[in-house]
Amino acid sequence: MKNKAIFYHAGCPVCLSAEQQIVDAIDTNRFELEVVHLGEERERISEAEDAGINSVPALLLNGTVLHLNFGASLNDVKGVS
Amino acid sequence: MKNKAIFYHAGCPVCLSAEQQIVDAIDTNRFELEVVHLGEERERISEAEDAGINSVPALLLNGTVLHLNFGASLNDVKGVS
Repeated sequence: MKNKAIFYHAGCPVCLSAEQQIVDAIDTNRFELEVVHLGEERERISEAEDAGINSVPALLLNGTVLHLNFGASLNDVKGVS
Repeated sequence: MKNKAIFYHAGCPVCLSAEQQIVDAIDTNRFELEVVHLGEERERISEAEDAGINSVPALLLNGTVLHLNFGASLNDVKGVS
Protein backbone atom coordinates (compact mmCIF):
# COMPACT_ATOMS: atom_id res chain seq x y z
CA MET A 1 0.00 0.00 0.00
CA LYS A 2 1.28 3.45 -0.84
CA ASN A 3 1.91 6.13 1.72
CA LYS A 4 -0.55 8.99 1.71
CA ALA A 5 0.33 12.62 1.06
CA ILE A 6 -2.33 15.35 1.10
CA PHE A 7 -1.49 18.94 0.17
CA TYR A 8 -4.00 21.41 1.61
CA HIS A 9 -4.11 24.96 0.32
CA ALA A 10 -6.54 27.83 -0.10
CA GLY A 11 -5.67 29.02 -3.57
CA CYS A 12 -3.20 31.75 -2.60
CA PRO A 13 -2.20 33.01 -6.05
CA VAL A 14 1.25 34.16 -5.01
CA CYS A 15 2.22 30.98 -3.21
CA LEU A 16 0.52 28.33 -5.27
CA SER A 17 3.07 27.84 -7.99
CA ALA A 18 5.93 27.67 -5.53
CA GLU A 19 4.19 25.27 -3.23
CA GLN A 20 3.05 23.01 -6.00
CA GLN A 21 6.72 22.42 -6.68
CA ILE A 22 6.79 20.43 -3.49
CA VAL A 23 3.88 18.41 -4.78
CA ASP A 24 5.81 17.84 -7.99
CA ALA A 25 8.86 16.73 -6.03
CA ILE A 26 7.06 14.02 -4.08
CA ASP A 27 7.83 10.47 -5.10
CA THR A 28 4.50 9.30 -6.48
CA ASN A 29 5.83 5.76 -6.78
CA ARG A 30 5.74 5.63 -3.00
CA PHE A 31 3.11 8.24 -2.15
CA GLU A 32 -0.50 8.55 -3.17
CA LEU A 33 -0.89 12.29 -3.57
CA GLU A 34 -4.04 14.34 -3.16
CA VAL A 35 -4.39 18.12 -3.45
CA VAL A 36 -7.25 19.76 -1.55
CA HIS A 37 -8.32 23.38 -2.12
CA LEU A 38 -9.99 24.24 1.19
CA GLY A 39 -11.46 27.42 -0.24
CA GLU A 40 -13.46 25.30 -2.67
CA GLU A 41 -13.84 22.16 -0.56
CA ARG A 42 -14.81 23.84 2.66
CA GLU A 43 -16.46 20.69 3.99
CA ARG A 44 -12.95 19.26 4.35
CA ILE A 45 -11.71 22.01 6.68
CA SER A 46 -12.76 20.00 9.73
CA GLU A 47 -10.91 16.97 8.38
CA ALA A 48 -7.80 19.13 8.07
CA GLU A 49 -8.25 20.46 11.59
CA ASP A 50 -8.69 16.95 12.97
CA ALA A 51 -5.38 16.02 11.33
CA GLY A 52 -3.69 18.80 13.30
CA ILE A 53 -3.44 21.36 10.53
CA ASN A 54 -3.44 24.92 11.86
CA SER A 55 -2.61 26.79 8.68
CA VAL A 56 -2.44 26.44 4.94
CA PRO A 57 -0.62 25.61 2.81
CA ALA A 58 0.23 22.39 4.59
CA LEU A 59 1.35 18.94 3.63
CA LEU A 60 0.08 15.91 5.50
CA LEU A 61 2.52 13.01 5.15
CA ASN A 62 1.31 9.74 6.66
CA GLY A 63 -0.53 11.71 9.30
CA THR A 64 2.37 14.06 10.09
CA VAL A 65 1.56 17.73 9.53
CA LEU A 66 4.09 19.95 7.77
CA HIS A 67 3.06 23.58 7.68
CA LEU A 68 4.61 25.42 4.76
CA ASN A 69 5.48 29.01 5.37
CA PHE A 70 7.55 31.40 7.40
CA GLY A 71 9.21 30.31 10.64
CA ALA A 72 12.24 31.45 12.63
CA SER A 73 14.41 34.01 10.95
CA LEU A 74 17.97 33.23 9.98
CA ASN A 75 19.00 36.09 12.23
CA ASP A 76 17.81 33.95 15.13
CA VAL A 77 20.07 31.19 13.88
CA LYS A 78 22.94 33.64 13.63
CA GLY A 79 22.21 34.98 17.10
CA VAL A 80 21.73 38.59 15.99
CA SER A 81 18.60 40.62 16.55
CA MET B 1 20.81 16.09 -14.97
CA LYS B 2 18.85 15.77 -11.77
CA ASN B 3 16.95 18.60 -10.19
CA LYS B 4 18.45 19.95 -6.99
CA ALA B 5 16.71 19.94 -3.60
CA ILE B 6 18.40 21.36 -0.51
CA PHE B 7 16.79 21.09 2.92
CA TYR B 8 18.13 23.72 5.34
CA HIS B 9 17.50 23.36 9.05
CA ALA B 10 19.04 24.32 12.37
CA GLY B 11 18.63 21.11 14.31
CA CYS B 12 15.33 21.95 16.04
CA PRO B 13 14.79 18.74 18.02
CA VAL B 14 11.01 18.98 18.06
CA CYS B 15 10.61 19.65 14.36
CA LEU B 16 13.40 17.62 12.87
CA SER B 17 11.72 14.23 12.67
CA ALA B 18 8.60 15.70 11.16
CA GLU B 19 10.40 17.77 8.62
CA GLN B 20 12.71 15.01 7.57
CA GLN B 21 9.60 13.20 6.43
CA ILE B 22 9.42 15.68 3.63
CA VAL B 23 12.98 14.83 2.75
CA ASP B 24 12.03 11.16 2.76
CA ALA B 25 9.09 11.87 0.47
CA ILE B 26 11.11 13.57 -2.23
CA ASP B 27 11.62 11.59 -5.39
CA THR B 28 15.36 10.97 -5.36
CA ASN B 29 15.20 9.50 -8.84
CA ARG B 30 14.51 13.00 -10.06
CA PHE B 31 16.05 15.16 -7.33
CA GLU B 32 19.55 15.28 -5.97
CA LEU B 33 18.93 15.90 -2.28
CA GLU B 34 21.20 17.64 0.19
CA VAL B 35 20.52 18.35 3.87
CA VAL B 36 22.31 21.31 5.45
CA HIS B 37 22.39 21.93 9.21
CA LEU B 38 23.00 25.68 9.39
CA GLY B 39 23.76 25.50 13.09
CA GLU B 40 26.76 23.31 12.29
CA GLU B 41 27.57 24.65 8.82
CA ARG B 42 27.31 28.31 9.63
CA GLU B 43 29.46 29.27 6.67
CA ARG B 44 26.53 28.29 4.46
CA ILE B 45 24.09 30.75 6.05
CA SER B 46 24.99 33.41 3.51
CA GLU B 47 24.42 30.93 0.68
CA ALA B 48 20.95 30.26 2.10
CA GLU B 49 20.25 33.97 2.39
CA ASP B 50 21.37 34.56 -1.18
CA ALA B 51 18.89 31.90 -2.28
CA GLY B 52 16.09 33.91 -0.65
CA ILE B 53 15.72 31.84 2.51
CA ASN B 54 14.43 33.90 5.43
CA SER B 55 13.79 31.14 7.94
CA VAL B 56 14.53 27.53 8.68
CA PRO B 57 13.51 24.84 8.14
CA ALA B 58 13.27 25.52 4.44
CA LEU B 59 13.40 23.50 1.28
CA LEU B 60 15.06 24.91 -1.83
CA LEU B 61 13.68 23.21 -4.95
CA ASN B 62 15.43 24.20 -8.17
CA GLY B 63 15.99 27.64 -6.74
CA THR B 64 12.45 28.10 -5.40
CA VAL B 65 12.29 28.65 -1.65
CA LEU B 66 9.68 26.82 0.40
CA HIS B 67 9.63 27.87 4.02
CA LEU B 68 8.29 25.14 6.27
CA ASN B 69 6.30 26.28 9.24
CA PHE B 70 3.27 28.14 10.44
CA GLY B 71 1.34 30.42 8.09
CA ALA B 72 -2.23 31.65 7.89
CA SER B 73 -4.64 30.07 10.33
CA LEU B 74 -7.54 27.98 9.13
CA ASN B 75 -9.80 30.44 10.91
CA ASP B 76 -8.69 32.96 8.30
CA VAL B 77 -9.78 30.51 5.63
CA LYS B 78 -13.10 30.06 7.38
CA GLY B 79 -13.51 33.79 7.73
CA VAL B 80 -13.84 33.77 11.52
CA SER B 81 -11.58 35.60 13.93
